[in-house]
Amino acid sequence: MRQTALFTKTRREAPADEVAKNAQLLIRAGYVHKEMAGVYSYLSLGLRTLRKIEDIVREEMDALGGQEIRMATLHPSEPWRQTGAWEQVDVLFKIDSRTEKEYALGQSEEEIVTPIASEYAPSYKDLPVAIYQIGQKYRDELRAKSGIMRGREFGMKDMYSFHTTQEDFDRFYEIVKQAYLRIYSRCGLVAKVTEASGGSFSQKISYEFMVLTDAGEDTILYCEACDYCVNLEVAKVKEGDECPKCRKSTLKTGIASEVGNVFDLGDRYPRALGFMYKDEEGRAQYPIMGCYGLGTTRLMGVIVQAFADDKGIVWPESVAPFQYHLVSAAPNDPEVVRYADALYDDLTKKGRAVLYDDRDVRAGEKFADSDLIGISHRIVIGKDAIGGKGIEVVARSTGTVSRMTREDLLAT
Amino acid sequence: MRQTALFTKTRREAPADEVAKNAQLLIRAGYVHKEMAGVYSYLSLGLRTLRKIEDIVREEMDALGGQEIRMATLHPSEPWRQTGAWEQVDVLFKIDSRTEKEYALGQSEEEIVTPIASEYAPSYKDLPVAIYQIGQKYRDELRAKSGIMRGREFGMKDMYSFHTTQEDFDRFYEIVKQAYLRIYSRCGLVAKVTEASGGSFSQKISYEFMVLTDAGEDTILYCEACDYCVNLEVAKVKEGDECPKCRKSTLKTGIASEVGNVFDLGDRYPRALGFMYKDEEGRAQYPIMGCYGLGTTRLMGVIVQAFADDKGIVWPESVAPFQYHLVSAAPNDPEVVRYADALYDDLTKKGRAVLYDDRDVRAGEKFADSDLIGISHRIVIGKDAIGGKGIEVVARSTGTVSRMTREDLLAT
Repeated sequence: MRQTALFTKTRREAPADEVAKNAQLLIRAGYVHKEMAGVYSYLSLGLRTLRKIEDIVREEMDALGGQEIRMATLHPSEPWRQTGAWEQVDVLFKIDSRTEKEYALGQSEEEIVTPIASEYAPSYKDLPVAIYQIGQKYRDELRAKSGIMRGREFGMKDMYSFHTTQEDFDRFYEIVKQAYLRIYSRCGLVAKVTEASGGSFSQKISYEFMVLTDAGEDTILYCEACDYCVNLEVAKVKEGDECPKCRKSTLKTGIASEVGNVFDLGDRYPRALGFMYKDEEGRAQYPIMGCYGLGTTRLMGVIVQAFADDKGIVWPESVAPFQYHLVSAAPNDPEVVRYADALYDDLTKKGRAVLYDDRDVRAGEKFADSDLIGISHRIVIGKDAIGGKGIEVVARSTGTVSRMTREDLLAT
Repeated sequence: MRQTALFTKTRREAPADEVAKNAQLLIRAGYVHKEMAGVYSYLSLGLRTLRKIEDIVREEMDALGGQEIRMATLHPSEPWRQTGAWEQVDVLFKIDSRTEKEYALGQSEEEIVTPIASEYAPSYKDLPVAIYQIGQKYRDELRAKSGIMRGREFGMKDMYSFHTTQEDFDRFYEIVKQAYLRIYSRCGLVAKVTEASGGSFSQKISYEFMVLTDAGEDTILYCEACDYCVNLEVAKVKEGDECPKCRKSTLKTGIASEVGNVFDLGDRYPRALGFMYKDEEGRAQYPIMGCYGLGTTRLMGVIVQAFADDKGIVWPESVAPFQYHLVSAAPNDPEVVRYADALYDDLTKKGRAVLYDDRDVRAGEKFADSDLIGISHRIVIGKDAIGGKGIEVVARSTGTVSRMTREDLLAT
C-alpha cells in the first residue's frame, strides 16, 4: 500500500489522558483511535496486525479440532439469571429496551454456548466437542487505564469444550495448553503457565498464561529447570526457595502479563442451564465444561509493551501489518522515485505486503515515522541503491543494516 | 470437513415462534441458532456462508479504494448528544454503567467515524477519503419477526466517505453504486436502485438497492428498458404508466427486498461534530459526507428467501458454505466407503472445500439433509460409481444429474 493512500498519519503526541505505553504508541503511529477510556477503534494498520494475531489463533484452534462460530453479543437476560451471573458478575453491562425486555452484553459466552452445545449433543457419542469464536467482549470496568490491554470493549478468542469425564477434560486441556504456548511463541513471546485455585464464583480451578515482560502487571515465581510457575499473589513459596516440583533449581521472580486463561468449570453451567446427555447406559448426565480465553487485543498490547523501544513500536515479523516498509529517501529525485516505484510494483506482484512511503517529505521524517510504526524490515532507496552499492535493508529490532541486490531482495 | 466431525445436525422443525422462512430453514439446516427474537448466533455452516458474503463485499470495497477499519461498537454518549441522535433515534440502545457514564450501542457509526476522519484529514489534499468496516450493529426494534433479515443484532458493512464538493460525492456515489450492483450479481441476485427523498432526520436524499424476489417486503415500480425504479410507497406513477425516464416502455410492478442503501448526508455530521478542513485558499470548510450501508446478514437472509424451494436452501455457488457435498450412499459397503474416503482426500488435497457426509445413516436421510443444507453440487458415491458408470453429480438448483469420471471431477 502506498502511504499517500493510507488515510492515517503519525502524530507527535498521544491524547493527554492516555497513560498506557501500548496505547500511546499505537495512537501516535495511527494503529488505533481512542473513543474513550477502555474503548478503541482499530484503524487500517491496527486491523492488519489484529487480523494477523487472529489468524494465528484461528489456525491453532482449528488444528486441535475447535469449530469456529460467531455468537450473538446481545444476550437475553434469562440464561444469565439462570446461572446467577446476572446478579453476581459486576462487570456485566445490562441494557433496558423499548420492549421492556432486558439484555446483557456478552462479557463471556457460557450462557449462550451451553444451550447451543446442548442442542447438538444429546448423546455421549457427540462428545467431546470444542466450540470457539473470535469476537468482541464488553466489561463494565471501573477503571480502564491500561490502553488496549484491559478494555471496556475488547477482542477475545473464547473456546468452550464439553466432556463426558474429568480425564477427558484434563487430556484436552493439555492439548489446548500446547496450542496456547505455540500461539505466544509465534507472536515472539515466551509464556509460562501458572495454576491458580478458582477465584471467581464459577470455576473449580484455573490456569493462567503469563508472558515474561518488564512491562507486566503481575509478579510470578518460576523455575528455570522445569515448568513450575506460580503467581506471587497466591504463592506459598518465595524467591530462592527450592523448586517444589523438580527440586533441581531455585525459584526466580519475574514480572509478567497475563495473556490467556483456562477455567475448569465442572458441571456448573450444564447444571444451571439444563444440558444433559445420555451416557452409554442411557442415563442422563451433565457434561464437564472447560473455558479457554485469549484476549486478542490484549495480546496485541502486550506485544507492543514487550518489544517497544524509545523510537517506537517493534513488531515481531509474524504480526507486523506489512512485511516491508519501503522508503524512498530522496522523493525529489526522479531517478530514485522511478526505482522505488518499480521495486514496489515488483514486490507487490510477488505477493509481498509492502507499505511504500512515497510521501514528499524529508528522509529523516520518514525514518522516524518508520521507527514509530515498527515494521520489521525497512528497505531504503536512495542514490546509493541505484548506484550499485546495493539496497539498504534495516532490521527494526536491532537496527542492523544489510545490503542486498535487487534480485536477492525479490527472491527472498 | 467430515460431517461426523461437524457439531451441528439438521433438525426437523424450527422453533414454534420462528415465522420467517429464512430463519426457519437456516435453523433447521444448522446454520444459525436463535437466541431470541431478532438475535441469532452463526454456527459453523452459517459462519462459512457469512464470511463468503463478507469477502465479496470486502473485495468490492477495497477495489474502489475503501479503507477497512474496525470501529468500537460501545460508544460514548457525547457525540450522539452532539448530533441530536441520542434523543431522536428511537432504535438506539442506551446503557448505564457503574461509572455513571452513559453509552450507546452502535446502530450506525457516523458519530464515531466523523471524528476519526476529522483527525486525519485537516486539508483538502486529504480528501476524498472512504472508510468502511464490516461488523455488528444493534437496533432496539419493537418487532423482529423477519429472521436474520431484520435483527436487533445484525451484521453490516458500513462505509463513510468525505468530499470537498457535491460533484465529487456524486462521482463517488456512481462508483459505489456499480460496486453494489456487482456484489448482488456475485450473490446471484439482480438489484435495482430506487431514489427516495430523505425520510430519516439525517439525510438529504437516499438511494435504496432492491432485489426482485417474491419473498420481498417492498413493492417497486420499474422500467425494463432502462434503470428507472421507484418504491411504490413514494411513487407518483403507477403500473402501466409510460416510463418517465426513457419513455420507451411502461412501468411494471415487482416485489422486492431492500439489500442496501446510500445516504447523502451533506455536511450535517461534520457540522455537528466539528470536522473542518482547510481548502486551497486556506479557508475552513465542512466536507460533504456519504454513508453506504449493506446488511451482510440481511443479504444472507434474502438469498435464502430468493432461492429456497420446498426441499430446503439453494445457495448460489459463490456463497455456499462448501463447494461440494460428497455423499457416500452406502455407508455399510466397505468398498463404497473406501472409494468415498479416497475421493474426499483427493478433492481436499486439491484445495476444494468439501463437506463429506460420512455418517452411518441411510441414503434417503442423507439426500434430504443435503437438499436442506443447499450446497450447489452434490457428489453421490454408490455401487454404480465404483462400477464404472461414472460419479453422479447433482445440481441442487435444478436437480440435474450428470455423470463424471473421477479424473474429470478432480480436474474441474
